[in-house]
Amino acid sequence: MANKKIVIVGGVGGGASAAARARRLDESAEITMYEKGPNVSFSNCSLPYHLSGLIPDADSIVMKTPEQFHKQYNINAEVNSEVIDVDAQQKTVQVKDVNTGEIRTSAYDELVLSPGANPIMPKSIKGIDKSNVFSVRNVVDIKALQAYLTDNQVSDVAVIGGGFIGLEVVENIAQTGKKLTLVEAADHVLGTIDDDFAQLVHKNLYDNGVQVILNDGLAEISDQHITLTSGKEIKAQAVVMAIGVSPDTTLAKNAGCRIGVTGGIEVNQQFETSIPDIYAVGDAIEVTNMITRQKTRLALAFPAQMEARDAVDHMYGRPVQNQGVIGSQVIHLFDLNVASTGLTEAACKQNGFDHRSVTVIPQNRVGVMPDTSPIFLKLVFSYPGGEVLGAQAIGKSGVDKQIDVIATMISMHGNISNLTHLELAYSPWFSTAKNAVNIAALVAENILNGEYQQVSISKVRGLVESGAFIIDAREPNEYAAGHITTSINIPLSQFRQRLDEIPTDKPVYIHCQSSQRSYNMVRALNNLGYTNVTNISGSFLELKQYEYFKDQTTDRKSILTNY
Amino acid sequence: MANKKIVIVGGVGGGASAAARARRLDESAEITMYEKGPNVSFSNCSLPYHLSGLIPDADSIVMKTPEQFHKQYNINAEVNSEVIDVDAQQKTVQVKDVNTGEIRTSAYDELVLSPGANPIMPKSIKGIDKSNVFSVRNVVDIKALQAYLTDNQVSDVAVIGGGFIGLEVVENIAQTGKKLTLVEAADHVLGTIDDDFAQLVHKNLYDNGVQVILNDGLAEISDQHITLTSGKEIKAQAVVMAIGVSPDTTLAKNAGCRIGVTGGIEVNQQFETSIPDIYAVGDAIEVTNMITRQKTRLALAFPAQMEARDAVDHMYGRPVQNQGVIGSQVIHLFDLNVASTGLTEAACKQNGFDHRSVTVIPQNRVGVMPDTSPIFLKLVFSYPGGEVLGAQAIGKSGVDKQIDVIATMISMHGNISNLTHLELAYSPWFSTAKNAVNIAALVAENILNGEYQQVSISKVRGLVESGAFIIDAREPNEYAAGHITTSINIPLSQFRQRLDEIPTDKPVYIHCQSSQRSYNMVRALNNLGYTNVTNISGSFLELKQYEYFKDQTTDRKSILTNY
Repeated sequence: MANKKIVIVGGVGGGASAAARARRLDESAEITMYEKGPNVSFSNCSLPYHLSGLIPDADSIVMKTPEQFHKQYNINAEVNSEVIDVDAQQKTVQVKDVNTGEIRTSAYDELVLSPGANPIMPKSIKGIDKSNVFSVRNVVDIKALQAYLTDNQVSDVAVIGGGFIGLEVVENIAQTGKKLTLVEAADHVLGTIDDDFAQLVHKNLYDNGVQVILNDGLAEISDQHITLTSGKEIKAQAVVMAIGVSPDTTLAKNAGCRIGVTGGIEVNQQFETSIPDIYAVGDAIEVTNMITRQKTRLALAFPAQMEARDAVDHMYGRPVQNQGVIGSQVIHLFDLNVASTGLTEAACKQNGFDHRSVTVIPQNRVGVMPDTSPIFLKLVFSYPGGEVLGAQAIGKSGVDKQIDVIATMISMHGNISNLTHLELAYSPWFSTAKNAVNIAALVAENILNGEYQQVSISKVRGLVESGAFIIDAREPNEYAAGHITTSINIPLSQFRQRLDEIPTDKPVYIHCQSSQRSYNMVRALNNLGYTNVTNISGSFLELKQYEYFKDQTTDRKSILTNY
Repeated sequence: MANKKIVIVGGVGGGASAAARARRLDESAEITMYEKGPNVSFSNCSLPYHLSGLIPDADSIVMKTPEQFHKQYNINAEVNSEVIDVDAQQKTVQVKDVNTGEIRTSAYDELVLSPGANPIMPKSIKGIDKSNVFSVRNVVDIKALQAYLTDNQVSDVAVIGGGFIGLEVVENIAQTGKKLTLVEAADHVLGTIDDDFAQLVHKNLYDNGVQVILNDGLAEISDQHITLTSGKEIKAQAVVMAIGVSPDTTLAKNAGCRIGVTGGIEVNQQFETSIPDIYAVGDAIEVTNMITRQKTRLALAFPAQMEARDAVDHMYGRPVQNQGVIGSQVIHLFDLNVASTGLTEAACKQNGFDHRSVTVIPQNRVGVMPDTSPIFLKLVFSYPGGEVLGAQAIGKSGVDKQIDVIATMISMHGNISNLTHLELAYSPWFSTAKNAVNIAALVAENILNGEYQQVSISKVRGLVESGAFIIDAREPNEYAAGHITTSINIPLSQFRQRLDEIPTDKPVYIHCQSSQRSYNMVRALNNLGYTNVTNISGSFLELKQYEYFKDQTTDRKSILTNY
């Protein structure tokens, strides 16, 4: 049998994984990987860290050179080589040498498309083609941006788009002392978390000197400033576009491959396109969300690598199952970490899923240990079924762990009842005895059982404005250090002696620092016959963070004192 | 209906949890918690951290005082109150005031036993009752030990028992500059990990100046030294006993409760003992291992808290399911973290479970980021079924996360195939794109599929001694910096041109730094028709650590050069 000729388009995450996997399965295959850029196999997720100098040498982001591919794996990694055409009948591709313009034809038995996605650079924005406008997709991009910032002594940078790449670029450039402005079209950054949790991120950006502009877009770019859709002018000598990516489907369309409803390349359970012997993987394809069963796109490294492996496995007759994705992600942002998995509340609403959520704020480790910090954890679950649907976590430490545990639970179709008793590794050094996920699940179980009522901190401003009866269940010294303006201080340690101060004829709302004391008071009052008592989920700890950014950046009246 | 009288014996993990849960479910219950010591509700797991001064004030380890229990929860927490007798017919307990000796009788409707476990202090050891002998069970113990070390200017401490408490005590005292000796009766510390991984812990202890003595026991304690079973004398002015705990079943036996085969109090699915209206929870009870279905005991904080909650829930007619335990644990030791869950290989053998294991050593985050460090991860799984049975992880960072993910998978009866594609949160800051658990599962899948052969690093010495053909697949500069004495250096980047050096008539063993390059070479050779090629799992990175402690502490000949 003749040696199998495998041609791979794209030499980064998916492409490089496909090539290496093919070699492991078949020593005799002729494997060629064409990459239009000058580098293969680089860690694109690491690119922003060059901007702060954390990764001083941008070339070190390249993990394997074409020479290493050749020597170690006998793989032809051809850089500066753009595949511009596919003849699916003849099973050939046309490859253009990007430097010389020379075009040659190469035959394949199996073709793997892993072209990735391109940063969206709308032509409608005036000045989008100017030399001070950048995107961050590869090593060339990041070197160009870094050189521009340095060579032109740029002092003000605007980053357009508050997704992962945008935020990482903001963080890394901000650390070099420049003045950053982040412009986001939606009402909050990071579509992977809900509005309430996003306020914590806004606060973090604000605290780190970043100007955050929401609900606004980029209209025009000049040399020294940008103009937003609102008309606002922002000083900026350099602009980084990070509003999103669009799947690179030019070649796939050209080959006749079907494109899915989301604009990504359509693939079947084996990552085959609609054209025989052409596979597609990575950021360019359309995937299925495992939870919603809706088509979607997901530009993440791990799925791309696994899709590539699966495609090659199928090429060699191995069983493969494209099970879809749940979407798990984490970002480091100054001294904060933000992680999430599965569905947000917003996504549940969008899909018409009846759901509930709980927010708990345990410490990352036992309180008596030094350097403890709170973990803000939101758990989203179906109602009334209690299936775990998603989670978001924000904190200085340990949030990736909590989210990974919940991602595992979602993948295994776990229920809240599976999380309450889940035995995780505990030592005071690493966590609390009941881990954050256990605590969240126990609260969720209460909600599923209808054991008490809760209200989100996003409703507190409305409660204050409508004159609701709000009890602060903390101790007097905590109350004195800052509280909701209209709240009444009845500590958990005193309420049994002060029941006459708690009305029975109107709704009563209770909070404390992290909802634990207020929860105990709510249960006690319910047991005492109070019928309309509600716990304020997230309590003062989340409320302070939630209100902060808007309090600082608008002229509205704060509902909190002394903070 | 009269108020329910709930009496709880023991005021720490299980006891305090039971009391708080009872109050949440029933505002009118009369809840009394008797604790024979002077404190309730302290974090016993945090005790060792007082010895290093990380927790400067031992009293801060107490999380809630009797006064707080009273004020916040209307719970009577009676300290220095030992329950010495139970009359299950009359439903009363006899309580002795530890200070005055006074005895009173207290009635109960429901009794919860949470007496914990006592440190084992064998009377057969001469001098066990001396004033320089300590155990670590409560705040009184840790204050006494700390005071003794300081007041007597102790310079040498012997810790007997290399379990979690023993190791934490060693670490914390060692940090004050004293000379520590650890004596362990088994051939390695930590029964929760296998021998090969324990060598990494031995190395860590050795590197931190701790004298580690294995396969030996304590025979006699003197003022200035101890004598071991082997006759060896060790300088030590203070001795900490940490060889294990035995469940405190005195009261349960007294009440007529059945004791299980492991010596713990027998309980049913609802944590009821064999005597009506008497529950038992925590370290004193016998539990069932969820994986082996064998009875066992597990002295850990989280299970105790959940058992207590469940017992009270059942008391109030709520559904409860005692599903057993898997055992998840983690310990911080100098600059190393050691975590594990489920079964070790040794436990699999003991239970007659056909199993396989893989060891992988990925970095904790993307290699191009600063401060990366390896995670040694062993995954244990059933053969041929591929059920995830257990895992062990050692590293400077991130091991608790990997183990918690695998613990979740075990709890959900996950298979290796569920781990390969598991979508965890990735950013270069936090992990590699394929997380450590993904990588381990992919290797495990290969083993299940019989795709190649592997051998554990514990076999390498035998291979060297028997003159086996061992290839070092690293680059020449790596080989020069240290290698297996008898190995031949044929780098992955050269082997295709040097096939004539690789014999076909005898077994060939291959390793590299972390098994990734050797794995690729093994697959290629298999594909080229070599039939007896074996990958050395764990490779040089694990081998160095595995051999180190014995190389340093015995006069055997090393099988490694230059290290």
